[in-house]
Amino acid sequence: MQVRGKGFYSLTSVSEALKKLLSDIRVLDEEEILLEDATGRVLASDIVAERDNPPFDRAAMDGFAVRGEDTFGASQANPIYFRIIGEVLTGQNFDGEVREYEAVRITTGAPLPRGADAVVMLEHVNELGDEIEVVKAAPPGKNVSLRGEDYKKGETLLKRGRMLNPQEIAILASLGLRRVRVFRRPRVGIISTGDEIKEPGEELKEGQIYDINSFALAALCSTTGAIPKRLGVVKDEYKAMRHAIEAGLDNDVLLISGATSVGKRDVVPEIVRELGKVLVHGIAMRPGEPTGFGYIGDTLVFMLPGYPVASIVAFETFVRPALQAMQGLKPEMPYPAIRARLRRKIPSELGRRDFVRVRVERSEEGYEVEPIRTSGSGIVSSLVRGDGFVIVPENTEGIEKGEVVEVRLFRSLER
Amino acid sequence: MQVRGKGFYSLTSVSEALKKLLSDIRVLDEEEILLEDATGRVLASDIVAERDNPPFDRAAMDGFAVRGEDTFGASQANPIYFRIIGEVLTGQNFDGEVREYEAVRITTGAPLPRGADAVVMLEHVNELGDEIEVVKAAPPGKNVSLRGEDYKKGETLLKRGRMLNPQEIAILASLGLRRVRVFRRPRVGIISTGDEIKEPGEELKEGQIYDINSFALAALCSTTGAIPKRLGVVKDEYKAMRHAIEAGLDNDVLLISGATSVGKRDVVPEIVRELGKVLVHGIAMRPGEPTGFGYIGDTLVFMLPGYPVASIVAFETFVRPALQAMQGLKPEMPYPAIRARLRRKIPSELGRRDFVRVRVERSEEGYEVEPIRTSGSGIVSSLVRGDGFVIVPENTEGIEKGEVVEVRLFRSLER
Repeated sequence: MQVRGKGFYSLTSVSEALKKLLSDIRVLDEEEILLEDATGRVLASDIVAERDNPPFDRAAMDGFAVRGEDTFGASQANPIYFRIIGEVLTGQNFDGEVREYEAVRITTGAPLPRGADAVVMLEHVNELGDEIEVVKAAPPGKNVSLRGEDYKKGETLLKRGRMLNPQEIAILASLGLRRVRVFRRPRVGIISTGDEIKEPGEELKEGQIYDINSFALAALCSTTGAIPKRLGVVKDEYKAMRHAIEAGLDNDVLLISGATSVGKRDVVPEIVRELGKVLVHGIAMRPGEPTGFGYIGDTLVFMLPGYPVASIVAFETFVRPALQAMQGLKPEMPYPAIRARLRRKIPSELGRRDFVRVRVERSEEGYEVEPIRTSGSGIVSSLVRGDGFVIVPENTEGIEKGEVVEVRLFRSLER
Repeated sequence: MQVRGKGFYSLTSVSEALKKLLSDIRVLDEEEILLEDATGRVLASDIVAERDNPPFDRAAMDGFAVRGEDTFGASQANPIYFRIIGEVLTGQNFDGEVREYEAVRITTGAPLPRGADAVVMLEHVNELGDEIEVVKAAPPGKNVSLRGEDYKKGETLLKRGRMLNPQEIAILASLGLRRVRVFRRPRVGIISTGDEIKEPGEELKEGQIYDINSFALAALCSTTGAIPKRLGVVKDEYKAMRHAIEAGLDNDVLLISGATSVGKRDVVPEIVRELGKVLVHGIAMRPGEPTGFGYIGDTLVFMLPGYPVASIVAFETFVRPALQAMQGLKPEMPYPAIRARLRRKIPSELGRRDFVRVRVERSEEGYEVEPIRTSGSGIVSSLVRGDGFVIVPENTEGIEKGEVVEVRLFRSLER
C-alpha cells in the first residue's frame, strides 16, 4: 500500500477489502459455559437429541384418559359411560392399564396410562361419583402429545455456528444440558490517539477535545458479543504509540483510532508495518477513507479514522464482520432496514461507497428520508439527530430525489 | 376474575390486559453509572450541552490556514503566493495572528490561528521553502469546522427515556461525561413449577421432563436489560409455592410459569390473591390463555403458562413491555418485521389473538411464509424450526392463503 505525500496512491474497494479481511479470519477456540450464561453466544458443536421429546406419551389437557375408540358416537343426547379406575398426576406414573370403557383422571403433562390413547377434556365430561358421562368423542390421539413428536433421539436440532437466542436456549434446556460448547468471545483492545484528545473528567485546554472513539468503539464491540477493553489515549508519537501497540497485543483484536491517515505525523501504519503486515490501507468509502487493517502476530489490528462518525462507519463495515466471523457467525449488519423515499438528492462519486446519515419521517404514503446536512464526519450530533444511514453504492454518482432507498436504522422510529 | 371449574369464565382481551398492566407500572429509581457501562441503559435525565462543540474553530483537513479572501482567483495557471509564518499541530495553539498572504501549517483538528478563516488543503499547495504556491481558491470557511457547528452550549442533546446505543455513548463522551444517570435495571425472580419438572443434569424418571421455562425466561429477560435470577423448580403444592413466592418478593418482578391454569391443583393464582391482588387472569390469546398478573406489595407478579411456547409468547406480549416501561422506555417488540405471502390458510377464532409460528422462505417475488404444523405449544422445536411469528388479530377468523402478512422475525434469515 504505497502512499503519496498528500493522500493515498490508490484506494481499495470496500468489497475487495472485506474479502481480504474475511479470508484471513480464524474462528476463535471453543469453551464450555453454563446454559444460563449462553444467551447471545454461538454454538461450537452440533446439538443432537439424546432422547425423544416428549420422552413419553402425555396428556395435553386436564381430563380423562380413555381408549379413544370407546368414545365414538358420544354426544349430549347419547352420552357414553366410563368407570373411573384411578388418577395420574403430572410427574407421576399409572401402574395399571386402561381397558374397555375405563377412564383414568389425568392432568396436563402426565404420562398416558398403558392402554389409553386419548384424553377426553373436562368440558366434555359429566362426573357422576365413580363414573363419567362422555358427551363428545375423543378419537385416538386426541389431546395427547406423542412421544417424540417434538423431536426424536438422534435428530440434529441445532448446528454449529447457530446464535443462541432465547428460543435456542429453550431447546437446550429441554435436552437437560447443563453446559454448552460455544466459541470464545473476542477480546478487543481499544486505543485512541491524538495529541488533542483528553480523557473525560479532565480539564480541557484550548485546542483540546474529549476522547469519543474509545467509548463509542467499546460500546459497539459490546453489541457484537466481543469483550472490549479501553487502553487509554496515546500521544501521536512513535515511541509512545509503539509501546502502547505492543502492550495491546495480548488481545485478539486491536482497534486504533486516529493517526492513521498519511500526514507526516501518522505513525500507526508505520508501526504496524514494522511489527507485522498491513493488508489494506486506504479504502474507497466516505466517511472512512483512511481505514486500514493488518496483523501483528495473531492480533488483527484495525487502523480507524479519528473522526468519530468515520470511525463508527469503519467499525460497522469491517470490524463488526470480523468480530462476527471470529465467533463463527456469518457477517451481518444488525440494523433493520426499511424502504423510504428520498426528499433530497444525495450526491456521490463513482467508485466510492458513501454512508449518508439520514433522518426518517413518516408521510402519508410510507416513509420519507432526509439526508442530514453536515460539514463532515466530525459532527457527532448527526449520529443522534439521524435515525440511520443510506449506503450509496460504488456504481453510481448519487441518488436522485424521489427515489426509494433502503435505510438501515440505528434505533426504533418510535420517538 | 371468577373462574369456573373447567376453564375461565371470561377472558380479557390482549389490549385491555396490556392497558391495565401498563397504567400501573412505576418507573424504577435512578442510579449513576460509568459511561463505559451505559450501553443499552436508559437515560434518566435530559442531557444539555455545557459547552460548544467543537469548542473552537478547527481545521478539518491537513493544510495551511489562511485568510480565505486572499486565495480568490488562485489557479494552476495563476498561483497565489503565501509566506509560511509558523505551524500549529493538533492539540496545540498558535500564538500569533495570520495576516494578508500569510499561512500557518496546520494539521486536522488543530485550532485555527487568529486571523485565518480557511484551510487550503495540501493537494492545492506547492511548497517552496518558506513560501507556498496556492493553486486553488479556499473561500472563508473552507475546510474549517466552526466552533459550535456540531452543537451549541445550552442545547438539549438527548432526552430522558432515550436508550443509550453506541451513537448516544459517542455524544456523551464528547461532553466529557464520566458518569451518566440512568434508570435502574429491573430485578426479575423466576420460578418454574410442576411436579414433573426436573433441573437439567438430574436423572429423569418416567413421567418427568426438564425445566425449560426458567432458562428461556431468564434469557428473554436478559435481552430487555433486566437482571434475571432463577429461583429454581417448585412443587405444585400450596405450602412450598407460598414459601417460594414470599421468598421471591425482594425482586421488582416475579415470573411464575406453570400451575396457573384453573385445574384443581393450580395454586399460584390462589396464593397471589391471598397475598396481594390479581389484576387479570385468563387472556383471549393463543397460545397463552392462562396468563395472568397482579401485585404482591410492590412486586409485579406474572403467572405464565407452563408450556414453553405459550410462556414465551406471554413474555413477549406482557412481560417485555412491562420491563421496558419500568426502565422508562416505550414498550416495543424487538423483532424486526418483514412482509410475506401466506402459503397456507391460518385459521383462528373471532375475539382471540393468535401467535402463529412460521417459517419464511425466499421466493421469486419476495418472501413466502409457511405456518408450522404443531399439535400445540408443548412443541419446543417449533421455536428453532421457525423463523418468526405472525399475529392474527381479534377481528378476524383467520388469514387466507395468498394474503400478505407481517412476520416478526426471531432471527436473521441468513441460514
